[in-house]
Amino acid sequence: MIAVLAVMTVKEGNGAEFESLAADLVAKVRANEEGANLLYQLVRSKTDPNVYTFMELYRDGDAMKVHAGSDYFQAAFQAMLPLLAGEPKIELLDAL
Amino acid sequence: MIAVLAVMTVKEGNGAEFESLAADLVAKVRANEEGANLLYQLVRSKTDPNVYTFMELYRDGDAMKVHAGSDYFQAAFQAMLPLLAGEPKIELLDAL
Repeated sequence: MIAVLAVMTVKEGNGAEFESLAADLVAKVRANEEGANLLYQLVRSKTDPNVYTFMELYRDGDAMKVHAGSDYFQAAFQAMLPLLAGEPKIELLDAL
Repeated sequence: MIAVLAVMTVKEGNGAEFESLAADLVAKVRANEEGANLLYQLVRSKTDPNVYTFMELYRDGDAMKVHAGSDYFQAAFQAMLPLLAGEPKIELLDAL
C-alpha cells in the first residue's frame, strides 16, 4: 500500500471554490477507483484554514498511477492550481 | 469527522521496535474502536525511514477522546516515547 499526503495552500478567499472542486474530485475517485484507492479524504488545518491536505491510500503503485492519469484528476488539478498560493507539497509514503 | 496526523521521528536503529509497538496498537484500535475510529494507518517516509506518521480519522471529538484515554493507547505511547528522537508533532484537522 502507498500513502500520499498532498498539502495545498489556497490564496485568501479561494477556500470555498477549492472545497467545491475537491468535493467533486473525491466523489469521482470514490466512484471510479473502488478497491484501488482505499482513502481519499480532504482535511483542513485548524490553525490555518487556507491549508488543506489530501490524505490518500492506494492498493499499489499502479493504482496510484491510474488515479494520477485519470481525466477527472487532471481536470481538477488544473482547475485547483490557479487557486493556490504556492506549489502543492506532495509526499509519497510507505503504508505499513 | 476529525483527522489527526501524528508525526514521530525515531532514533536511528529503533524502527523495528517502533513498528512492532505500532502494529500492536493499530490492532487494538481496530478491535476496540470500530465505528468511532475510521482510520488508523501507520505510514513511513520514503525520504527518511526514521520518520513515521499515523494517519487517523475519528467520527467526532468524543471518539478521539475515548481513543486517547484508552489504556492500550496510553501504554503504547509511553513505550514509544523513549524510542523517539524528539517530541511527536500531533496535528488535529477538520475532515471535510
